[in-house]
Amino acid sequence: MINYEPLFSNSAKGMKRSEIRELLKLTARPGIISFAGGLPAPDLFPVEEIKEMSRIVLEREGRTALQYGPTEGDTRLREELAKMMQKDGINITSNHLLIVTSSQQGLDLTGKVFIDPGDVVLTSRPTYVGAIQAFHAYGARMIGVEQDEEGTQTAQMEAEIEKLAAKGVKPKFIYEIPDFQNPSGITMSLKRRQEILRIAEKYDLVVIEDSPYRQLRFEGKTEPSLLGMNSERVLGLYTFSKILLPGFRLGWMAGPNELIQKAVTAKQSVDLCSPPFNQAILFEYLSRGLLEKQIKVIIKAYREKRDFMLAMLGKYMPKLPGLKWTQPQGGLFLWVTLPEGMDTAEMFHSAIEKQVAYVVGTAFYPDGGGRNSFRMNFSYSSMAEIEEGVKRLSEVISSWKGGREASIITP
Amino acid sequence: MINYEPLFSNSAKGMKRSEIRELLKLTARPGIISFAGGLPAPDLFPVEEIKEMSRIVLEREGRTALQYGPTEGDTRLREELAKMMQKDGINITSNHLLIVTSSQQGLDLTGKVFIDPGDVVLTSRPTYVGAIQAFHAYGARMIGVEQDEEGTQTAQMEAEIEKLAAKGVKPKFIYEIPDFQNPSGITMSLKRRQEILRIAEKYDLVVIEDSPYRQLRFEGKTEPSLLGMNSERVLGLYTFSKILLPGFRLGWMAGPNELIQKAVTAKQSVDLCSPPFNQAILFEYLSRGLLEKQIKVIIKAYREKRDFMLAMLGKYMPKLPGLKWTQPQGGLFLWVTLPEGMDTAEMFHSAIEKQVAYVVGTAFYPDGGGRNSFRMNFSYSSMAEIEEGVKRLSEVISSWKGGREASIITP
Repeated sequence: MINYEPLFSNSAKGMKRSEIRELLKLTARPGIISFAGGLPAPDLFPVEEIKEMSRIVLEREGRTALQYGPTEGDTRLREELAKMMQKDGINITSNHLLIVTSSQQGLDLTGKVFIDPGDVVLTSRPTYVGAIQAFHAYGARMIGVEQDEEGTQTAQMEAEIEKLAAKGVKPKFIYEIPDFQNPSGITMSLKRRQEILRIAEKYDLVVIEDSPYRQLRFEGKTEPSLLGMNSERVLGLYTFSKILLPGFRLGWMAGPNELIQKAVTAKQSVDLCSPPFNQAILFEYLSRGLLEKQIKVIIKAYREKRDFMLAMLGKYMPKLPGLKWTQPQGGLFLWVTLPEGMDTAEMFHSAIEKQVAYVVGTAFYPDGGGRNSFRMNFSYSSMAEIEEGVKRLSEVISSWKGGREASIITP
Repeated sequence: MINYEPLFSNSAKGMKRSEIRELLKLTARPGIISFAGGLPAPDLFPVEEIKEMSRIVLEREGRTALQYGPTEGDTRLREELAKMMQKDGINITSNHLLIVTSSQQGLDLTGKVFIDPGDVVLTSRPTYVGAIQAFHAYGARMIGVEQDEEGTQTAQMEAEIEKLAAKGVKPKFIYEIPDFQNPSGITMSLKRRQEILRIAEKYDLVVIEDSPYRQLRFEGKTEPSLLGMNSERVLGLYTFSKILLPGFRLGWMAGPNELIQKAVTAKQSVDLCSPPFNQAILFEYLSRGLLEKQIKVIIKAYREKRDFMLAMLGKYMPKLPGLKWTQPQGGLFLWVTLPEGMDTAEMFHSAIEKQVAYVVGTAFYPDGGGRNSFRMNFSYSSMAEIEEGVKRLSEVISSWKGGREASIITP
């Protein structure tokens, strides 16, 4: 047997497989109701339209669509996306836009462009587990700042930056998901958005605005995006996975040209270009105005699911001191906090026994914490599954005595 | 204006845009005959079959194909690929196989899994420019070893390893393209393959076998693959780009399970999974035995093009001392060496003026060298273009006095 371990890079030595990905495997077990994954509802996928667009692309431009394409992405698709972003108040042209192979690649490119081992990145806590993984792979040291119902506590963030500055350390960037955050479902208030940008100016930082759910607002007022408020300090990450379908693995980055050009260069060594075939199909789809219609369909369906999940939580959850959940105005997730001292990683085993799954809170904490919380997805399950799943979960929580069982997921 | 430079990672600061990608832009200029890119011939793409397979996939399994998929890739596709590799003498199952988003991603994952800044990687010189970029992005120090007509000079490689060992440095891996190497077109002899593996055993190293062209042999005897000869020390990289089409951005990695598992973990932070839609289409295509037929079509067409390019080089090239080119038995490229002292980077400007393009040799040298050489692709151009392009190139070389013009590409 060969011992490969000494040959691995430091980041590979420390790599743990994503809990989310491992948990997704459990969702395949028959009988399990999973609120764990971040999967969109597949019954909403516009399969017929995609079939039609695929046919059109292959008939009209098969040889181009099946060839290599430019690293920047399909020019026509970039122009459609620029138009869509302009409607959202973001003053941008296609030159400020790079097509990526999923917004996870956007995170990976962000790591490649900015992070050297030991560099500091500021995030909220909790934050998206995929971002933690991507930045850790480049050796980032992530410092998390608590959230409240208005989003990241910016005063605390400024204090952290000052503490770092006193030690001669300057962070590389601030990472935020301002709209319907993953995992908390919280939307950042306008005041906090202004504060984040003020801090970025004051300390000469870049802000990474991860924005997969922004277009999925069910109600309430849309706050301006960070990129819309500041086109020089913000690099935005976007994806088709939640507003259309994940199976094409396509997303985009937008921001200052110099940062986009750096990301283009980095992308050349990562996969040369994103699939031109898939890009051409999406261009067809967007140019017909179909995405706007599809987003309305998704919003309607997810709003109903969120409403129902909130109702079921209210109906079934035990009345325990400190037990609470967020009320997201959009997106795919909500966040449950259990009484202090309860451990959702320990409880996970019982949940699986009862045939229900969530993602343990600790997965979303880059620097510890979140033991008494978990994330729930409401986009994937059917209404019947939501009721039955919440019921099971409530029983697990009600009957949980804590601490006695071994955890099968150690974060 | 913001100065982003201090925020960039060390590798991003040093990133230069790929010369190949920049050169590809020149191919879009009307009138230019380009031997620069590594593009397959688009008129051979099986557009009709892909259209039919797309339709079948969307009708039968649209909701699954458009959803997220497992990081490892579509199980059915992995099984088809394992069968194909078994026929090539590689004793492997689908558990030893990971679908990647192009073999360029395979190179990037290799970098992520093995390389810390300053780590040494051994390659032949010249070698694939995309590998140089991918490994450099992780801070690799690449040491190149000269090739001859049998491939990498293994005695020299062993001497390099000994020199490093004397300084207490152990390389992370050896990177090789044993079949129809990019850029040289050279195929490694059996004896050298055995030597590479002996060296890997002796010094406890892993070998990365990059194998995009292996199935495109026009003539002569197929040597066993490195992975077929040693299943414990070799990690293989493969792609559909050259044997079928690049527009799906799909390839695969194969090797020891422990290395594949590490790559799976790394891939989770890179793009979660490769496009399930594209994978399902390729599964359909492979399961019908269409790939084997397609490879035969490609071999026939590329053999004719290679023959014709060799004939045209013989007919038009000036008789200069030291001017020579390789005679590849397969693949997409051949390699031209000019008389000592000539500089193909300086000459490039004249070539573009004459409306013909190649890739300058220095692009393929990780540590300097190759100034009097360039790479030519024979898969993309038509017969008429090959004749006219070689004629133009011969005129450029004949009339080149050297040194007086500014280079537009500085390697």
